[in-house]
Amino acid sequence: MNCTHPFLDLDGDKLREECGIFGAINASDASAATALGLHALQHRGQEAAGITSFDGTEFYSRRGLGHVAENFSSSDAIAELPGYMAAGHVRYSTTGGSGLRNVQPLYADLASGGFAVAHNGNISNAQTLRRDLVRRGAIFQSTSDTEVIIHLVATSRYPTIIDRLTDALRMVEGAYALIVMTPEGMIGCRDPLGIRPLVMGRMGDAIVFASETVAFDVVGAEFIREIEPGELVRVDFDGQIESLHPFGKHRARPCIFEHVYFSRPDSFFAGQSVYAARKAIGEQLAIESPVEADLVVPVPDSGVPAAIGFAQQSGVPFELGIIRSHYVGRTFIQPSDGIRHSSVKRKHNANRDLVAGKRIVLIDDSIVRGTTSMKIVDMMREAGASEVHFRVASPPTAHSCFYGVDTPERAKLLAAQMDVEPMRQFIKADSLAFVSIDGLYRAVGSEHRDKSCPQFCDACFTGDYPTPLTDLKATEAAAAQLTFPDHKAA
Amino acid sequence: MNCTHPFLDLDGDKLREECGIFGAINASDASAATALGLHALQHRGQEAAGITSFDGTEFYSRRGLGHVAENFSSSDAIAELPGYMAAGHVRYSTTGGSGLRNVQPLYADLASGGFAVAHNGNISNAQTLRRDLVRRGAIFQSTSDTEVIIHLVATSRYPTIIDRLTDALRMVEGAYALIVMTPEGMIGCRDPLGIRPLVMGRMGDAIVFASETVAFDVVGAEFIREIEPGELVRVDFDGQIESLHPFGKHRARPCIFEHVYFSRPDSFFAGQSVYAARKAIGEQLAIESPVEADLVVPVPDSGVPAAIGFAQQSGVPFELGIIRSHYVGRTFIQPSDGIRHSSVKRKHNANRDLVAGKRIVLIDDSIVRGTTSMKIVDMMREAGASEVHFRVASPPTAHSCFYGVDTPERAKLLAAQMDVEPMRQFIKADSLAFVSIDGLYRAVGSEHRDKSCPQFCDACFTGDYPTPLTDLKATEAAAAQLTFPDHKAA
Amino acid sequence: MNCTHPFLDLDGDKLREECGIFGAINASDASAATALGLHALQHRGQEAAGITSFDGTEFYSRRGLGHVAENFSSSDAIAELPGYMAAGHVRYSTTGGSGLRNVQPLYADLASGGFAVAHNGNISNAQTLRRDLVRRGAIFQSTSDTEVIIHLVATSRYPTIIDRLTDALRMVEGAYALIVMTPEGMIGCRDPLGIRPLVMGRMGDAIVFASETVAFDVVGAEFIREIEPGELVRVDFDGQIESLHPFGKHRARPCIFEHVYFSRPDSFFAGQSVYAARKAIGEQLAIESPVEADLVVPVPDSGVPAAIGFAQQSGVPFELGIIRSHYVGRTFIQPSDGIRHSSVKRKHNANRDLVAGKRIVLIDDSIVRGTTSMKIVDMMREAGASEVHFRVASPPTAHSCFYGVDTPERAKLLAAQMDVEPMRQFIKADSLAFVSIDGLYRAVGSEHRDKSCPQFCDACFTGDYPTPLTDLKATEAAAAQLTFPDHKAA
Amino acid sequence: MNCTHPFLDLDGDKLREECGIFGAINASDASAATALGLHALQHRGQEAAGITSFDGTEFYSRRGLGHVAENFSSSDAIAELPGYMAAGHVRYSTTGGSGLRNVQPLYADLASGGFAVAHNGNISNAQTLRRDLVRRGAIFQSTSDTEVIIHLVATSRYPTIIDRLTDALRMVEGAYALIVMTPEGMIGCRDPLGIRPLVMGRMGDAIVFASETVAFDVVGAEFIREIEPGELVRVDFDGQIESLHPFGKHRARPCIFEHVYFSRPDSFFAGQSVYAARKAIGEQLAIESPVEADLVVPVPDSGVPAAIGFAQQSGVPFELGIIRSHYVGRTFIQPSDGIRHSSVKRKHNANRDLVAGKRIVLIDDSIVRGTTSMKIVDMMREAGASEVHFRVASPPTAHSCFYGVDTPERAKLLAAQMDVEPMRQFIKADSLAFVSIDGLYRAVGSEHRDKSCPQFCDACFTGDYPTPLTDLKATEAAAAQLTFPDHKAA
Repeated sequence: MNCTHPFLDLDGDKLREECGIFGAINASDASAATALGLHALQHRGQEAAGITSFDGTEFYSRRGLGHVAENFSSSDAIAELPGYMAAGHVRYSTTGGSGLRNVQPLYADLASGGFAVAHNGNISNAQTLRRDLVRRGAIFQSTSDTEVIIHLVATSRYPTIIDRLTDALRMVEGAYALIVMTPEGMIGCRDPLGIRPLVMGRMGDAIVFASETVAFDVVGAEFIREIEPGELVRVDFDGQIESLHPFGKHRARPCIFEHVYFSRPDSFFAGQSVYAARKAIGEQLAIESPVEADLVVPVPDSGVPAAIGFAQQSGVPFELGIIRSHYVGRTFIQPSDGIRHSSVKRKHNANRDLVAGKRIVLIDDSIVRGTTSMKIVDMMREAGASEVHFRVASPPTAHSCFYGVDTPERAKLLAAQMDVEPMRQFIKADSLAFVSIDGLYRAVGSEHRDKSCPQFCDACFTGDYPTPLTDLKATEAAAAQLTFPDHKAA
Repeated sequence: MNCTHPFLDLDGDKLREECGIFGAINASDASAATALGLHALQHRGQEAAGITSFDGTEFYSRRGLGHVAENFSSSDAIAELPGYMAAGHVRYSTTGGSGLRNVQPLYADLASGGFAVAHNGNISNAQTLRRDLVRRGAIFQSTSDTEVIIHLVATSRYPTIIDRLTDALRMVEGAYALIVMTPEGMIGCRDPLGIRPLVMGRMGDAIVFASETVAFDVVGAEFIREIEPGELVRVDFDGQIESLHPFGKHRARPCIFEHVYFSRPDSFFAGQSVYAARKAIGEQLAIESPVEADLVVPVPDSGVPAAIGFAQQSGVPFELGIIRSHYVGRTFIQPSDGIRHSSVKRKHNANRDLVAGKRIVLIDDSIVRGTTSMKIVDMMREAGASEVHFRVASPPTAHSCFYGVDTPERAKLLAAQMDVEPMRQFIKADSLAFVSIDGLYRAVGSEHRDKSCPQFCDACFTGDYPTPLTDLKATEAAAAQLTFPDHKAA
Repeated sequence: MNCTHPFLDLDGDKLREECGIFGAINASDASAATALGLHALQHRGQEAAGITSFDGTEFYSRRGLGHVAENFSSSDAIAELPGYMAAGHVRYSTTGGSGLRNVQPLYADLASGGFAVAHNGNISNAQTLRRDLVRRGAIFQSTSDTEVIIHLVATSRYPTIIDRLTDALRMVEGAYALIVMTPEGMIGCRDPLGIRPLVMGRMGDAIVFASETVAFDVVGAEFIREIEPGELVRVDFDGQIESLHPFGKHRARPCIFEHVYFSRPDSFFAGQSVYAARKAIGEQLAIESPVEADLVVPVPDSGVPAAIGFAQQSGVPFELGIIRSHYVGRTFIQPSDGIRHSSVKRKHNANRDLVAGKRIVLIDDSIVRGTTSMKIVDMMREAGASEVHFRVASPPTAHSCFYGVDTPERAKLLAAQMDVEPMRQFIKADSLAFVSIDGLYRAVGSEHRDKSCPQFCDACFTGDYPTPLTDLKATEAAAAQLTFPDHKAA
Repeated sequence: MNCTHPFLDLDGDKLREECGIFGAINASDASAATALGLHALQHRGQEAAGITSFDGTEFYSRRGLGHVAENFSSSDAIAELPGYMAAGHVRYSTTGGSGLRNVQPLYADLASGGFAVAHNGNISNAQTLRRDLVRRGAIFQSTSDTEVIIHLVATSRYPTIIDRLTDALRMVEGAYALIVMTPEGMIGCRDPLGIRPLVMGRMGDAIVFASETVAFDVVGAEFIREIEPGELVRVDFDGQIESLHPFGKHRARPCIFEHVYFSRPDSFFAGQSVYAARKAIGEQLAIESPVEADLVVPVPDSGVPAAIGFAQQSGVPFELGIIRSHYVGRTFIQPSDGIRHSSVKRKHNANRDLVAGKRIVLIDDSIVRGTTSMKIVDMMREAGASEVHFRVASPPTAHSCFYGVDTPERAKLLAAQMDVEPMRQFIKADSLAFVSIDGLYRAVGSEHRDKSCPQFCDACFTGDYPTPLTDLKATEAAAAQLTFPDHKAA
């Protein structure tokens, strides 16, 4: 399930991660809590939201395009979702009404009863599994990889739901954090490497699951612990909690980009404060790539914590040299007056009085295509900055993600095309530096990256993918046959 | 025209200012430019927006509830608004469809032709004038004070539009920045004290007017100058610009709250950078009311510049101790789980890891009712702060505004009810301090407040209203009669 | 207020009359009764509906495009319209949201209090009066002729509302049936010739007014009487009813087309059953223009009563040779398959089995442009009819109406362009006959038409307009000046 | 697929049949033709409509609640449905958005490619088949019986689509007319008894299928023939037409209620004009149950043809004693004025002038619950009728339909509860008579009903169901077990 991130992405120039999921069981207002929890996870997917609830007899669903607040803030909406168990999902979605059938939680009537699932991540052999299921007569409702899991459960030969789910997950490859609802209770689980996040909390008598701890703050729940890699946590309606590890225990490789950009700064991830991690990355940057300057200017809002870290480490003052509009939305019709205008200006505007005549250090979390970076450097120069230095709080993003993050195809990643010096020329900065991969690991609490067995999934920086990529390889093989038939014949 | 400000006002605990207006003449895409300009002024009014255009023959109007982006970003919307002259308005509005008739620009067919007006401010004798006009047979379409101006123009005995408008404004009292469109061109004007802002710029061959300079940055226009107090600037379709001062020249008294909160930090107001002014207020605060602390924490986002100033002056590090959600909307249904939850949490969340065990200085721009301040202090304590000191980047707000800012009635202003020490107890801070009135004036560039003839309108702090308040006095007189009939009989 | 009739007008080939109005005072559910009453008058205007109510203190309004059922059937809608007095209006309206401001009842705050009016008819000197009012400073909200009445009331020098209304109506020329609401009660009135209909009834303690008696049947009210020409009936909240004749007494000239087409067959109009009148017209037709035939076929639904009359008089059997679809709406995209298709078929379809090989007499109520008649004759032939005779239950419609009926401009009326024989050729019928004007008068209960002082307004047939047509003459005069400037100079 | 009929059913007092289906292949504007065809079938289902098209590569779908005109009249809607093959469906649906997933055509991606189906009828063993499919892992998207067919096709072991479809239909029991689309072409088929109708026509090079011939009139197609009972007609993209009879040949038993009420009077059904059949039923009634009366009054609109027949046979004049409103919609809020009001009045109103003092014969097509009949008799008496005789153009409806018609449960059918005389007392008529079953057969062209092998399905009158009713029997068996557990134990 590829999802998106909205923070400042007018030009599609951020990695678009990823879904957010939330579930509550044994809560007297499960749907209201889920709506609030999803709202706190809104940054993980803004284009659609769905909630499914269970009242002991029936499952109820409501899904909509747009924000959680637009779809789930009213008492009417919540009244359609009765019961003491509910789970929800926020996601990126293609535009248009037809996209609605892909909005999660997905639901199916199985022989064993209702089965609902909310999924964050991506199944990297979904196409392969789907082809096989269709051949056996399965009829898919959506184009979502998540539906593969449901059909695998439906057609499993095992008798109990937990065994059928385990059977299904054994065939699945990739990244997933799942919240599953059945008439027997709720199951939270994470893929064997724990690539995508999932945490568990307590809210009175209720147990809650969420992608990030910030959702617990908002609903007033208490953080218990992270779900472990490969763990299935089953909670029933008597409040019994059971932990299963059907695939054995693996060392975790959680996504390091959660620290760089995806998670909210007030969340904890992999045992660490995200805000603290980001500040520490900024400090690393100041140590590794210092620069003489008058101002440290964050690219708002995602660059702010690293900029504070950089400023504190370097002693260069932190200032808001770019002001961000809170009202960013769709593309506007441009006046054709021969007027110079860039869409970036609707979101970001130079603080001219501050910037004029100054040497500035811009701090951003990452560079993806580089187009926004180029426009922002230009905006600083136009506002009179005498020097513009660019510092990036992550290593060069040179590889696509296949684990639930919507990266551009590799050819469009600036760092896949060129080295740092040509990148500097491309964005027209006076200097450009990225934090080193070991610097990043240090900032998030390790000595350095363990090459033989990295502590995180960092494939977007290193190309070191922790799982086979079956669909991708099948596609590449097919493309190869298509492209070079003669060679093959030879 | 009372309007609102959305920034962080879940609990109605900010002054709600005020409208934003924008106009363009001799622009080939006047409506598209106006839509972009209004979008940049969205922080001045989020609940409704309207644009009126003129194509040399006809006037066209489109108005809608909600944001500019929702109503004016599409090519269809802009295509409904042809012509080379357009003006628009963003405002606070009462909910519900009927509110639409109050959305500006207001338009009327006069004997001289079409007449459209967008107004920021408040006519403080509107009720009195309206009663008289209705008595003479005028029929009002809206409940807006702005419509009074139109009826005064319509019934004026003068022959030309500019004389009729001058005649009308002579009868009007209060604060106004107006953009007027007639078949002869555009007029921008400001009340004799220049209480509400209006600036003029150039965009190629076009002349543009706006409430704030930030709108010029976004449309790519060049700032020319502020409209002077009491000035009418008339622009015709040949590009002729004429300046009139029919009411003589007065010393300006612009609204000082534009510096404190209303304007965007990247705007210039009354000759000064708003960001610089806010930082300087923070510095004044640090000088006037220093405190031993570990962290300076802004109440986001309006407290950020003052917090940076405070931190730089005091040497206490600036940190994001409160994380703001970008997805604040309507009120949600609350789960009734016996869970402690405050609506403030949906917008603001403590950065627990950072705050725990620390002495913090919270910086906010103002205190209105005090309820949000109290909740934020509480949130800091709950997150483990050992001390919470509160510093406010404006003097106590003790008086209502009658110039276009939606203040609570005076009885609900915390500072109208109590002194600083009881206020501290109310919000439960360890210490509380406001910047002094002279400190504020120093920060915005004066030696001190000139008591005999203040350089700004600061009535919300001082109660020193620069104009008579005819409607208010009439209401108070009527209330007095109502309340003490015996006394009157006596 | 020009309104429309929907019955079978895919091609704009019916006269489009006219509004319907309904009011109730001293009714505990005034708005609910008004919604039902308007629903029964829906055939008089389908494109917009509005209701205004009064609860003793405030007036409430709700208006919408579309049918009464879409806008006023819900309890929410009715709850927005509290009070024991209400009036409503159904009308034809131009498409698009902006049309909403023309939807009635119109409302104004006058110095004397609220004033609401619902109007059926047309003020034939409205443009002239409006120009004068605007010159004196009046600001119009709508393009409706009805608003002229409100401004005349607002600017009248008389002290009481009833005198101001009389004063206003004295200046007004044309046709009107009005329901007026003020804080003192309800006034129903009709123009001095009673061109447009208005009836009064009793519903328990309530008094009700309506355009047609059918509305009384639906709400369960009892018919009292017609409002007389030039009469104002005032009802106050104590139930007092007062009749005023400020303009003296005139002989009535009600619109004869109400009998021909506008009114529902189950209404009474001008003292006679509409169904009986239509049957009698059909009988007259059979007497005046008999024909040898196998079947009498009505053009449904408006031709049905006359066809029954024709069949009974002639002894030729009545049969449904044309079947009407109940689901006529918008224009559909046509398949371009080289397939022969006419839009008429979506509404009317030949009953082939019945028609094949037969000599048929088609009966329709009127011929306006003649395009539909031509298509229907063609449809009958295509279905195998051996002869197609056309009989029309009204005289040739050769003149436009200026009294609230939306007729095409005169040049588009078939009968304004040609005599009966060319009309027959145009519609390709084997024979064509219209009822004579005296035959029509006989059918509606007179000996014959009284030429010196006709008993009905029949201007659409005779060109004999009972009032001056000031606006029309002013337009014609202006057009004359425009067209022949040389002559004028000469 | 149970669907509904809207004609005059305010009180749920008509049998609600049934869906309408239409398909076109090798048509350059297949979707536009389908929209028009469905529009002509709108009387067979008004609550939802859907169209699916195929452009040689992709299938496209659009579905909506409401009428065809609301969803498919615009060029935008048709542009979403490109291609030269399309099929559509109109139906009755439960209210609310969630019903959308049941709107047909249903579509699935099978291993063999896309598969779309539109279905009129009801599968009487659908529940039994569904339970078995779910047990084998099938996941259903809808609650529709039609989806069972798709899963049976998906899981069939046969290689070709036509064999898989045949395999599926062999397992299915009940009534169906289907239009199926695959990448190879279109298939039209009817159940082995031909209970539900389906006709085939030609429109230029295109072949079209429809529930009724009236759709061909509207799109300008030529009727070829009815699809035979048990026949599959396959049309490919080269225009080849192939007829298959995989289940052998059976004698047809088409639904006789199509003649009584469901079909439009201008359609042909089972080789006969529906209008002529209805007139003939009226004549039979006049012969079987004559009555001394002044007027024959149809209950509009469905009683009109039978009333004409009755009048012609009896010599009693046909008159519109009841006027029907064309604007019937939702339920309105009722005024609580102590006023007598029945919802029937909004649809039907007495023509008082005509009815007063007369002996009338009311003609209606059927009596279901009897509540409307009672209200209409009452309305006639209230309008002054001296005698009210009721004649019904069908035998007593005493049995539920399980073949796609939404009948009330049997206990609510008036004729299931009582004989004719008590029914007369219930509806308060002076006399009551139904056409005899043999009279009905005579009117539709048979000598008499062939008891051993009836020429029509007439189960609603006779209880003689032509197929096993597997689901019903399973439910009854389960209910029996539920009700008498002791007996079972015994």
